Amino acid sequence: MKKVAISIGDLHGIGIELALQNHHLVKKLVEPIYCIDSYMLHQASTLLNIAIPKDFQIIDPEAKAFTLKPSTILALSGAYSYASFTKAVELAKAKKVDAIVTLPIHKKAWEEAGIYYKGHTDALRDFFGAEAIMMLGCEKMFVALYTEHIPLKEVAQSINKKDLTRFFLDFYYATQPLQQVAVLGLNPHAGDDGVLGDEETIISQAINEAHKILGKTIFTTPLVPDVAFTPQIRANYKHYIAMYHDQGLAPLKALYFDEGINISLNLPIIRTSVDHGTAFDKAYKGVALNNLSYLNALRYCVKE
Amino acid sequence: MKKVAISIGDLHGIGIELALQNHHLVKKLVEPIYCIDSYMLHQASTLLNIAIPKDFQIIDPEAKAFTLKPSTILALSGAYSYASFTKAVELAKAKKVDAIVTLPIHKKAWEEAGIYYKGHTDALRDFFGAEAIMMLGCEKMFVALYTEHIPLKEVAQSINKKDLTRFFLDFYYATQPLQQVAVLGLNPHAGDDGVLGDEETIISQAINEAHKILGKTIFTTPLVPDVAFTPQIRANYKHYIAMYHDQGLAPLKALYFDEGINISLNLPIIRTSVDHGTAFDKAYKGVALNNLSYLNALRYCVKE
Repeated sequence: MKKVAISIGDLHGIGIELALQNHHLVKKLVEPIYCIDSYMLHQASTLLNIAIPKDFQIIDPEAKAFTLKPSTILALSGAYSYASFTKAVELAKAKKVDAIVTLPIHKKAWEEAGIYYKGHTDALRDFFGAEAIMMLGCEKMFVALYTEHIPLKEVAQSINKKDLTRFFLDFYYATQPLQQVAVLGLNPHAGDDGVLGDEETIISQAINEAHKILGKTIFTTPLVPDVAFTPQIRANYKHYIAMYHDQGLAPLKALYFDEGINISLNLPIIRTSVDHGTAFDKAYKGVALNNLSYLNALRYCVKE
Repeated sequence: MKKVAISIGDLHGIGIELALQNHHLVKKLVEPIYCIDSYMLHQASTLLNIAIPKDFQIIDPEAKAFTLKPSTILALSGAYSYASFTKAVELAKAKKVDAIVTLPIHKKAWEEAGIYYKGHTDALRDFFGAEAIMMLGCEKMFVALYTEHIPLKEVAQSINKKDLTRFFLDFYYATQPLQQVAVLGLNPHAGDDGVLGDEETIISQAINEAHKILGKTIFTTPLVPDVAFTPQIRANYKHYIAMYHDQGLAPLKALYFDEGINISLNLPIIRTSVDHGTAFDKAYKGVALNNLSYLNALRYCVKE
């Protein structure tokens, strides 16, 4: 059975609740190692009124302890979630686990703790000096993002042959897709033969270059973005490459929100994550939590 | 019963087939007047092997006749579809019909016929000297587009307070929405407090200005675009305003492709359209055609 380090996320959010509630399901999939210390775990368990399972294996992230105040942004909680994350990464680097799954952190709490990464993926890029690719989705549909967290006005100028070719190749090596991969155009109607923009020419050139290097055809020509996700078209593809954040994620989340996960490709370790946030509005309230994304994140590690 | 002029679209596409096949259903909804002459109608009927219903009321668009060559781009066919469309508009202007429904034209055929409008909506803007608003969707979800057929790189610079305020007001007067209207931000995460772009500030200012003029609150603050279409969020809204084409239409078409229609708001006439093209790959082949969009376009006219 694969060993998976689970970073516990912001302890003021729903992460620890998901971990405790679903341990009986998780342990059937993997051998989980939770990156939390005994003192903080007991606090959370008491507040949540959920007993700590006997076989709940933990490892101390060696961060400063604090008194839990559910659903609040706190520098100490941000620092703890960061330490939990880096501990999981350390275990993966040392090959003591096969993969890591990250529970949601709160970006503002990271910021207040003096941690300025935009999120896990951004931090991983820095830790490994590698061009991590952000891919979101579920078994029915995965969407990889060529550009991610940048203003919309900077997207068009980010389209260039060299970076796109590199991206297509990295994506191919990381996923080894068994069927054709759908590549989206940038403009409405994929530019309508240049009338509505011409970046599709650059995208096509990069696709051709990647095919030449790979010696085979993997990627489609740039698809009309708003038609690419209709039922008839999406029946043909499992993987999409979107040129920008909302182009790919708006249709993906419209279709498969609850079950989606976030995967970091092109890294020396396997890392997946839930595709939702800390949900301060639901944390520690005894509200039913949807565990689909969490379990799917673990299932993905098993497959890899 | 309302009278509706139906422009027949490009005669080499699926428009005439939809009209003949669905007349028995259409006449239960409205009194249809088809903008086609007897000679062309008989040709199509023969080729399609569909008899002309006895009560199939036609009006001659007075365009040059030609021999049908299904699924081919032809200047004469473009000119005919344009004449059919302007005839329908003429009937509506003269109040001889209550609304018009347009079947799909082929843009390239229009171009070859020397007609340089980008489509029906664009032509209507010119005919009426009015800022027509393009809205697509179905009863479950309508998406109005602030910018439409422009390159993605021009979208951000199109965001300005004056035009947006005008758009929000026009949209309100045209739709008289009964519930709150969802307005999308421009950037990923709606800008994340300015970190990923700041056009949301301008959008918010325009919303506030519109509310001041209307004396009530109609529009949301700019929503996070990729989350706005998830099931939990979309349960709250019927109308969305998207800042650009694919932001709104990719999720809409992922969810409700077959049933969607296209509506021109803010015009002195009522005009709806199917939300699909000429489908040259299916025309005159005896293939089963989906009539949902066509019937929904007619139903919308009945309601208005």
